[in-house]
Amino acid sequence: MINRFCESPLWDANRTLIRVAQGQEPAELVIRHAKLVCVTTGEILDDTDIAVACGRVAYVGIAPHTAEHCIGPRTKVVDAQGSYVAPGFLDGHIHVESSMVGPSEYARAVVPHGTTGIYWDPHEAMNVAGLPALRELAKDAARVPLKCMITPGSCVPAVPGFEDTGAAIDAHDIAEAEDWDCVVGLGEMMNYPGVLAGDSHVLDEIDVTLRNGETVTGHYSVPETDRGLNAYIASGVSCCHESTRAEDVLAKLRLGMYAQLREGSAWQNLHDLAPAITQHRIDTRLCNLVSDDNHPQTLVSEGHMDRILRKAVDEGIDPMTAIQMVTINTATCFRMQGELGSIAPGKCADLVFLDDLHDFRVTRVFIDGDEVARDGQALFCPAPFDWPEGMTHTMHLARPIDDNTFRIPAKDAKGNALEGDYATVRVIVSSSGSTLTREEHDQVRIVDGELLADPAHDVLKAFVFERHHATGKFAYGFAKGFGIHGALAQTVAHDAHNLLVVGDNDHDMALAANELLECGGGEVAVQDGQVLGKVELPICGLMSPEPVEQVAAKVERIEQAWATMGCTMASPFMTMGLLSLACIPELRLTDRGYVDCTKYQFVPLVVQDDAS
Amino acid sequence: MINRFCESPLWDANRTLIRVAQGQEPAELVIRHAKLVCVTTGEILDDTDIAVACGRVAYVGIAPHTAEHCIGPRTKVVDAQGSYVAPGFLDGHIHVESSMVGPSEYARAVVPHGTTGIYWDPHEAMNVAGLPALRELAKDAARVPLKCMITPGSCVPAVPGFEDTGAAIDAHDIAEAEDWDCVVGLGEMMNYPGVLAGDSHVLDEIDVTLRNGETVTGHYSVPETDRGLNAYIASGVSCCHESTRAEDVLAKLRLGMYAQLREGSAWQNLHDLAPAITQHRIDTRLCNLVSDDNHPQTLVSEGHMDRILRKAVDEGIDPMTAIQMVTINTATCFRMQGELGSIAPGKCADLVFLDDLHDFRVTRVFIDGDEVARDGQALFCPAPFDWPEGMTHTMHLARPIDDNTFRIPAKDAKGNALEGDYATVRVIVSSSGSTLTREEHDQVRIVDGELLADPAHDVLKAFVFERHHATGKFAYGFAKGFGIHGALAQTVAHDAHNLLVVGDNDHDMALAANELLECGGGEVAVQDGQVLGKVELPICGLMSPEPVEQVAAKVERIEQAWATMGCTMASPFMTMGLLSLACIPELRLTDRGYVDCTKYQFVPLVVQDDAS
Repeated sequence: MINRFCESPLWDANRTLIRVAQGQEPAELVIRHAKLVCVTTGEILDDTDIAVACGRVAYVGIAPHTAEHCIGPRTKVVDAQGSYVAPGFLDGHIHVESSMVGPSEYARAVVPHGTTGIYWDPHEAMNVAGLPALRELAKDAARVPLKCMITPGSCVPAVPGFEDTGAAIDAHDIAEAEDWDCVVGLGEMMNYPGVLAGDSHVLDEIDVTLRNGETVTGHYSVPETDRGLNAYIASGVSCCHESTRAEDVLAKLRLGMYAQLREGSAWQNLHDLAPAITQHRIDTRLCNLVSDDNHPQTLVSEGHMDRILRKAVDEGIDPMTAIQMVTINTATCFRMQGELGSIAPGKCADLVFLDDLHDFRVTRVFIDGDEVARDGQALFCPAPFDWPEGMTHTMHLARPIDDNTFRIPAKDAKGNALEGDYATVRVIVSSSGSTLTREEHDQVRIVDGELLADPAHDVLKAFVFERHHATGKFAYGFAKGFGIHGALAQTVAHDAHNLLVVGDNDHDMALAANELLECGGGEVAVQDGQVLGKVELPICGLMSPEPVEQVAAKVERIEQAWATMGCTMASPFMTMGLLSLACIPELRLTDRGYVDCTKYQFVPLVVQDDAS
Repeated sequence: MINRFCESPLWDANRTLIRVAQGQEPAELVIRHAKLVCVTTGEILDDTDIAVACGRVAYVGIAPHTAEHCIGPRTKVVDAQGSYVAPGFLDGHIHVESSMVGPSEYARAVVPHGTTGIYWDPHEAMNVAGLPALRELAKDAARVPLKCMITPGSCVPAVPGFEDTGAAIDAHDIAEAEDWDCVVGLGEMMNYPGVLAGDSHVLDEIDVTLRNGETVTGHYSVPETDRGLNAYIASGVSCCHESTRAEDVLAKLRLGMYAQLREGSAWQNLHDLAPAITQHRIDTRLCNLVSDDNHPQTLVSEGHMDRILRKAVDEGIDPMTAIQMVTINTATCFRMQGELGSIAPGKCADLVFLDDLHDFRVTRVFIDGDEVARDGQALFCPAPFDWPEGMTHTMHLARPIDDNTFRIPAKDAKGNALEGDYATVRVIVSSSGSTLTREEHDQVRIVDGELLADPAHDVLKAFVFERHHATGKFAYGFAKGFGIHGALAQTVAHDAHNLLVVGDNDHDMALAANELLECGGGEVAVQDGQVLGKVELPICGLMSPEPVEQVAAKVERIEQAWATMGCTMASPFMTMGLLSLACIPELRLTDRGYVDCTKYQFVPLVVQDDAS
């Protein structure tokens, strides 16, 4: 559907627009002397005027024509002399939750950077609190001018049967959500094995979306670009942000799929993907630029789509092409080109003022004709949102946690006590900047019937506690790659967002876990009984009610704490959060145990002699 | 809405497609070794295989990949070695009625030329027989593979209050029609003065279409490209085929409107419009190529969209760009890019085999994966359609016509007898190749209380009879420019499709009129009591049940008759049919009288002394 993200639908506004265009009624806003970024023709139209009424463009006057005839005594007139005026930037695939704030605060952070619309998959919050969370998030979003267009999480839980989440979503839920005004499609279909296997659960979700005429967004992250990719696209998925090589991008475009080139905080693919455009003479109409995940620090210090545009131009992409990739192409991907993505009569008056087309410094932003940001500051300030208890009290453990909780019994999979001084165990090996993990087999000591961590060799204990429904489920294993002394805990841990604790000693681990239980979730770093850093995320254990700048500062501090504790990783918190992400190879730990994510089966902690 | 023009909707087909793509189930059709015209990237992909099932593309195998794994014992395998394979051509704006056949026969004519889908405004038939006609036409269309996507006539009658039609359409009718599967938008909004004036009648039609998420097609034919065009686009109209100058095209594209470059049988704009593309470095994504009106002879002797592609390339447009303008761009204009317009997994398997990209000789055509034409011949042959009486008996006059009917009383507007030997009368002057007419004041003789034609000075009598509801209304005047001796009659006469008779003597005029009354409408040429040519069009007085080749031959013969009778015009029948087209300047004759089409008022036949 169209029109519902605008101040007024075109069928209500058009009578006024017609009069304004002809000078029979004054405009509410007239922007004069702009260098218009005309994304439909790919031209810069010098000295262009734009008249706005009812939140929509009524008239575009290209020199020698002007909008003087649209100016009345109460018309706000803005001189854009020297500025480029582009359509508002659209982020075609984003998870607000990764910025650790709610959508209204997110809007305050990104709108000053020129973002006027986001296509948001809130699957993190939905894993915790289901469809009701989506409804509340949409309510918060509706209080700010940013157009939050939602694609509900399609894979909740991400790996059914291997983890416990707060909620589960099926095709009936999707059908219900698609009737809501905020919903424009289906969230990223991460379960591509399910699609390729023809699983009813996933295809039913796709089908209900297709029937509704909406967009099925994708997640196809394997290098196979022939039969599997064809089958995946044939299912009805029409865009994908998971390319890591230029050849992935080319393959998707050639098969008619929108390739959403990602440049997030942690996953920065643009350098590798840009050659698909710069080294091939191809039509780029199916290319988008997207961020996927933004850390709060990235938003505060580097920006949002303006940052990605800078990067795109740095990589050699033509500035007009880059802007098309965050405006008309993105709107067309979601079949909303009639409303968004260009500056033209009848379209929403979502406008971005830019000093130039290489630094993309945003000076003013208008949404639905209202000025909403100037010189990097939002002109709106959302009051705190009253989140329901179902989203603010999400830490539910069956039993209290103390030091003893973190004892790992020296038993085999059948419960038989292990003999000897050492046991061979599976260890998850993480590495900086990679979403993949590796399975390693290491020796750990057996002391008093207990398996010990081995900090000298960076073998830490890892625990995951189900924290949504107090089922009492938990599992443990060992993790390598973090190099710390102390303990770390977080509830962001993907995709079930259970309570994940990693550490080299039980006392710090218990303290870390209890800190998060007390504050409703978040992340914490503990060493020798001291809390070195903490980011409270009491909304679903994922988001903070604080301003993004404060959250960013806290994240900054906790990352310094990580370094103090011995970790040299680039995004340690993010990498740690993937320990439980059971949809990506190779070995992961969920609240149900170790998952071999190549064969999709549980595997025991202890490696017996007959296994190698 | 999507999906309803395909063999099976994607949500029904996708499970099969997924299996076929992976070689788990054989395809119905595999095309091998094609030079794929990849319109999404603008590339030719050499040696590409295409596998099809359920009428849709399941798999596209780009070399070195092949579709061998999709071939089973009953798979039809087609070797495309040496051929380009392009997406089926779409005509973004067409009136089937101008080809003088019904839609199924039209399909038989155009499909062998690569056309797989048309966006059809059936306003001619609707002027005669209203919404019921649309329903019947859609039924006929549904019997052939061509995808007939209908935009119901928005301006029926075209000029309310100045003419009498068989039916009238309002927003309620449009709302009703938009629930029908065949309808995808609103027909050309010719009443741009109404739009600019904010008339409720026209805006209500637009609004009901916008609410439905469908496309409002346009008709903005004046050279004004500033305030008026802005207002027109702001109303919600998103495409227009009425550009006559390159600057019109540029203005529309810059204002976000699809510019549909027309190359019809009579109105051939491409030569003038192509420079908008060839002389400007612009993005052409909003450009379509359309035919608008095709004479039957054009279809038979020159083709359809293949003809326009040839012309586009002759005019210097890059072949890939030209093909995009009849495929992906057109589908996107109607927000149907998810179904049509490219060859990609999940899309309808509408495919055209071409020998090259300059002559565009079409050798094979597939729709929904079925071969439907080969070497210029359709492989389907629709049986005669059983048109209802409301569409085959549309000639209803209140009184019989005889020679006396054509006596023009020598009276002024008040009914007073004119004195003297001569009277000054308004004359409509037509000229070859122009849709415009001119008003001229000439002297005609008064004999026995009657105004006479003046064949020596090419001043012919012209009569228009209301023929839909036997109201008895008729009007008369004089016409110049045809240069004939004898009489001509037709029921195609735009836009009310009343009975139009032109001639230099009453006896031939009466014979011509009665010939058409007898055969249910059409066109006829009579001289000295002999019928020199006749094209019977008994369906609504607009279309023939005969094969298009026979209709073309009859039209050919009648055009020869015109020449025999003294006419030197290029498309005399078409030009004559515009005598009553009251939506274009300057002077026209409807069944209600002379209309001054610059001021929109009736004007009298006789010019009194005080008028000049």
